[in-house]
This record gives sequence, structure tokens and C-alpha cells, in this order.
Amino acid sequence: MPGHGPPFDEREYRSRLQRTKDRMAEAGIDVLFCSDPSNMNYLSGYDGWSFYVHQGLIVSREHDQPVWVGRDMDAKGARVTTWLDDDHVRAYGDDHVHSPVDKHPMDFVAGVVEDMGLADRTLGVEMDAYYYTARTHQRLQDNLPEADFVDADLLVNWVRCVKSDAELEYMEQAAKISEAAMQAGIDTIGEGVTEADAAAEIYHTLVDGVEAFGGDYPSIVPLMPSGDNTGTPHLTWTDREFQQGDPVIIELAGCRHRYHSPLARTTYVGGAPDDVQETADIVVEGLNAVLDTAEPGVTAETVERAWRDVISSYGIEKAERIGYSMGLGYPPDWGEHTASLRPKDETVLEENMTFHVIPGLWFDDYGVEISESFKVTSNGCETLADFPRQLFTS
Amino acid sequence: MPGHGPPFDEREYRSRLQRTKDRMAEAGIDVLFCSDPSNMNYLSGYDGWSFYVHQGLIVSREHDQPVWVGRDMDAKGARVTTWLDDDHVRAYGDDHVHSPVDKHPMDFVAGVVEDMGLADRTLGVEMDAYYYTARTHQRLQDNLPEADFVDADLLVNWVRCVKSDAELEYMEQAAKISEAAMQAGIDTIGEGVTEADAAAEIYHTLVDGVEAFGGDYPSIVPLMPSGDNTGTPHLTWTDREFQQGDPVIIELAGCRHRYHSPLARTTYVGGAPDDVQETADIVVEGLNAVLDTAEPGVTAETVERAWRDVISSYGIEKAERIGYSMGLGYPPDWGEHTASLRPKDETVLEENMTFHVIPGLWFDDYGVEISESFKVTSNGCETLADFPRQLFTS
Repeated sequence: MPGHGPPFDEREYRSRLQRTKDRMAEAGIDVLFCSDPSNMNYLSGYDGWSFYVHQGLIVSREHDQPVWVGRDMDAKGARVTTWLDDDHVRAYGDDHVHSPVDKHPMDFVAGVVEDMGLADRTLGVEMDAYYYTARTHQRLQDNLPEADFVDADLLVNWVRCVKSDAELEYMEQAAKISEAAMQAGIDTIGEGVTEADAAAEIYHTLVDGVEAFGGDYPSIVPLMPSGDNTGTPHLTWTDREFQQGDPVIIELAGCRHRYHSPLARTTYVGGAPDDVQETADIVVEGLNAVLDTAEPGVTAETVERAWRDVISSYGIEKAERIGYSMGLGYPPDWGEHTASLRPKDETVLEENMTFHVIPGLWFDDYGVEISESFKVTSNGCETLADFPRQLFTS
Repeated sequence: MPGHGPPFDEREYRSRLQRTKDRMAEAGIDVLFCSDPSNMNYLSGYDGWSFYVHQGLIVSREHDQPVWVGRDMDAKGARVTTWLDDDHVRAYGDDHVHSPVDKHPMDFVAGVVEDMGLADRTLGVEMDAYYYTARTHQRLQDNLPEADFVDADLLVNWVRCVKSDAELEYMEQAAKISEAAMQAGIDTIGEGVTEADAAAEIYHTLVDGVEAFGGDYPSIVPLMPSGDNTGTPHLTWTDREFQQGDPVIIELAGCRHRYHSPLARTTYVGGAPDDVQETADIVVEGLNAVLDTAEPGVTAETVERAWRDVISSYGIEKAERIGYSMGLGYPPDWGEHTASLRPKDETVLEENMTFHVIPGLWFDDYGVEISESFKVTSNGCETLADFPRQLFTS
């Protein structure tokens, strides 16, 4: 579906909106201000790299459509990418952008809330969402003294957990891109190749996509901790050259219409020693146990326990988060911040939930990580990508 | 300088820290909590894609070094990338990550502030910084009832405005990458090529870099509004194919060690009609006037007026922000959020400040944007990149 129109039909957006309104009603919330770009996209279709300025979506239970509020130069993009009527796009002037504190975009947002006749309602805000800053909250409160503010963090994120068939189709397309990009990474990495070279090839594939469709930008750059740094998962590439004997963990995600399908594999420059191969075998066994366990009705913590039972049979004890619900996302994350595969998380898996399970084992001088993204089916789960679940050699 | 060590020597970091402490003293701030990843990097060297979880740097005027606080799995990365002693890296457990609200990373941060004996001090926080969420602020306040909270937003950003020679060297390297990536974009764009194809080639060059060095990831993805959408600057690429007669604006930035050198050019698929060429000529004339005006002692608003005087001589009236201070950055922005080239900004330009000036003119069916990044020199300014300042044909 080329071009910038919304990637889902209006019926799908209306269904998402209704489920959001239902949750708002349960929580006693009249009006929800979404500033998480993923939640804005989920409910309106809005898609643009404009989250570096303040923006949001006002969802009112009393109104048929949400109202997009953002910067004037982004209003046209909102009219193009959302299903909303043009009069539901409201924009503040550029003099509000990175301006001294006397003119803040939230002053304008508060005015829109007033115009909508909602200034004295119960207003839900996403207290811990990216881009909902402390000042944003303060200015909204100052400007809406009659409103009753409540924390609605993650309300929409929880609605997002169970995917529609159309969403799953984009995630499966993203998985095709992940497969191609992973292959590009494994093929490129080798002695004397720089980390930047490998990242460039991976990025090229992530964006160029596969024959049938191109890729969107992933919410997290490809990560490739290598050598001594396999235990530092979030360092990005440098000009360092890979060396014989380097373990390299590749974590990446293809992306389609902002839907991700993350994938991680470990490769070994020049071939792995026996102990690394044995570690990889344990990781694969544990990962397979997870995939055998995940099904509707099972809890997130039960899924994690399947992994832990395997590694403890090898004398390894650790109880950590090994995965999380994911899908739609904007930088800096593709995770949904809802269900985690970890001890004490009692979320019950449902059909069409999607997770990235990324277990790993780290020792002093190397680590092995092998992951899968999967969807919960009616009676089990299926991985989104089809890529050999093994340790590689580069 | 391959590998993950800090890209500047300790003396440079200590100079930055001292200038920050001086500003803190002027503002009556004892302790500063930086959560903007750019400010964390500027003062400590910390570099990792970990800003999707809460983290920060505690800068105390009573302490010799700042203290990095973040997630346990990122602590090793902090030890590797910063100049800080290992005991100045403090980490919270993974059970704080995307956890129900009863365990928040700021509870841990408050504990570190207490351990440092600073719980009753005047504490500056970056109220409108990315990732300093409303809940972050609330939890810090709840946990530090004796502290006096003050808004220290942009305090470090203002310190960052004037660059060192070492910073300028990275920005000049970034400009070399920008030139190569712009050429790749202009060369790739053409009738029947998809936007994703062009973005893939640009990204490949941005990351692969030039012969002497690789590139870092830019804080904003390459933007290429085209056709009717040149007036929607923040839409990202799709699978749409470029068509004969499409204007395409390419905005990108090479990046080295997180330092950017943004660059924008406009190209026209199949060649531009006369009116577009005339518009481009006006933009170039206005841009040249800006570059002739910028020098130490001149105000930001005076620089903008040079542009406005040119366009008004052609009967075009608009008074907008045409540029901003920039350099070090993390997603979602490479701008510093300090000085803007716009009416009413009275910031006085100083030697070694760096700006991206990106003026443009938009009409109903097309727009032209041509930009330069420049550094202020002792008696004028110099562009960082050397790329023909003209309208292109693809």
C-alpha cells in the first residue's frame, strides 16, 4: 500500500477507539491525552517524525473522533496520515517550539480541551510515557485547574496487546525483512570488517526491505555487541574491526508501517569453541521450551519458568525478564511496556498477543543470545520469522 | 578512534563539568539530575541505546565526579564508555524496568542522592527534557521530600552551545558523511525508484561513512518529502515510486560520535520548471545572506532578518524560525533547543557556536528547502559541508 494514507481501514481505527473508550469508562476517565507516539498512531494513524516537539491526541468519550494537536508544520501530515476529519486536526504556531518557558505547546492543548467543552472533566494522562515531560504535565495542570487529572499510563498500550489480523500481517511482513537483514549481517561480519560496515549492510536491508515491499525505520538501531562487549547489549557500532574469535550478538527488527518483528542471533567470527557451542545449545533448548509453553491461558511467568527450568537443569540460576509484548513502536523502543515474560508477571496469554522472547547467557568473556518474536495462536504459538535457531559462524 | 572508550580526553570532560558547575552556582543549584541523553553524554561520555529506560547523571557541586545511574545491564556499558571511576556507576535491578508503578527507577535514584548526602539540597531537574517524564518528577519529589526542586531545563544545553576544537573536528567529519549521503540520495532518486530504495542508499552511506571513518546513527532518520508532500517535512519514506515532475527535499545528517552536521537539498525528478528554479534561486540568495551576516556579536534574530529581507524583496512575507543551534544529539532530535534563528531571539553569536540554517519556501504544489550547517568563526562563519548550494535534478 504505497503512499502516506492510514495503513488500516477506518473500521479498524474505530474498533481500537471503542476499546479505548471502554477502558476509559471502566477507569472513570472522560478524556484521555495520549502523547506516546505509538498510541497516537494506534488510534489515529498519525505517522511522522515530529515527536521531537510536543504533540498529542485528545480522546473524549463524548466525541466521535479524537482530536490531533501538534505543530503547524505537521498539521498537513496529520491530515494526510490519519483517518480524522480535517477539523479534528489542530495546530499551534512555530513560536511555541523550543521556546522560552512563557509559550508552551500545552497552553494550546489546554485551549483545545476548553474549546471541546471538556475543561472540567476527569482527564487521563500518560504519566510515564516518553515525551510526556514533567513540564508538559505541569503546564496542562496549570491551564486546566478545573480538570481532575488521573494517571492513565499504559491504558492504550494494554488495548494494543491483542493484535488484529491486519496488524499481524504487517508484523509477518516485518519478519521477512528481519530474516533478510539478519542474513545480511551474518554474511557481512567477518575478520577485518568494521562494525560500521556490518551495520550499514543491515540498515540497507532493513530499509530496502524485500522484493515485495520496503521497510520502515526500526525504533531501535541494529545492535551488535561483540568481543568483550557481548555483555553490554546496548552499545552501538564503532569503527572497530571484528577479530578472529569474536562472539557477535546481532539484535535487529524489520519494520512495516511501524510494526516490528525483532530477531536476535549470535555469530562467531571464525567458528565457536566448544564451550560457546554448548552454551548456545542450552539457549536454544530453553528458547524451544518457551515456545512449547506459550499458549492461550498460560501466564507470562509460566512462560519464563519454562526457560528457567531448562537452564537450572544445567546448574545455571537466574530469574530475569526474558521477553516482552511488542509490535507498534517509535524510537526509542518497540516494546509495549505491558506484559513481560518474567517472574511475578501474571498476565494471561491470549490469542494474537505478540512477544519478543530474548533469552541469553553471559559469562566473563562472551555471551550468547538467540531470540524469536512469536504470536499466540488458538492453541500454541508461532514464530513470526523463519530463521535457523542456532549459533552461526561468520 | 575505534572502540567504545570516551571520544574526548578527561580534561575536556572536566572542563565541561566545571562550566556546568559554574552555571549551577549562578542559579543556586547544588545538585543537577540530567536525564537528557545528550547532556549525560556531554558530561560523562556515556553512549548507549538505553534511553528507552530511565537513567540519569547526578552532578553535585560538592563531588569531584558525576554519578551515572541506570539499569544493571547497562552499567558495564557505562564503565566502558565514560571517564568516570567504576564506583561512580550505580545500577538498579531489572525488576524496575517497565514494572508496575510500585517499583520505579527514580526510587533508586533518590537512594543514590541520599547516599551521597544530598537529600536536602537544591536539586535541579530538566523539566522539559525528553525522557524526564511526569512520573519521574513525581517519584523523585516523593522520595526526596527535603530537597528543594528547581527547574534546570537547558542548563547543560546552553553550556553545549560553544564547541571545542575536538567537537568541531567530529562535526566536520560528520559533514563529510553528509556530503556523501546527499550525493547518494541525489544519485539514487529518479523516476520509478521507491522512496524506500532511496532511503536505503542514504542510510547505507550515513552508517558506512567515508573511507577514513564510519558513521554513527543520526538522531533523525533521513527525511525525503516529495511530490505534493514537500510541505509535510516530517513524513518518512514509503513504498511510493518517485514520478517525473516530483520535487524531493532531502534532509539528513552525517553523525560522528553523536555529533551531527545536518544538510538539506532539493532535487527535481526530470528537471525543474522555471518557477521552481526561480524559487530555488531566492532560497539560495537568502541563505547566502544569512551566511554573510552570521559572525560573533550579531544576534540570532539579526541573522534571521537577513533571510527575511531577501525574500521580502521578492514580495514574500513570512517570519519563522529558520535555524537552530545543534551538534550532539540522540533520537529524537539533533537540535540543542537553545538559540533559534528567529524573530525575538536575542542570543549573541559567539565563535565556535554551530547552527543548522534551513530556510525554505512552500507553495501549493511544491516547496524548496536548501540548508547549511555552519560554525561561527572569529570574524564570520564557515559551512561545515562543501556541497553545491543549488537545486538539483534527479
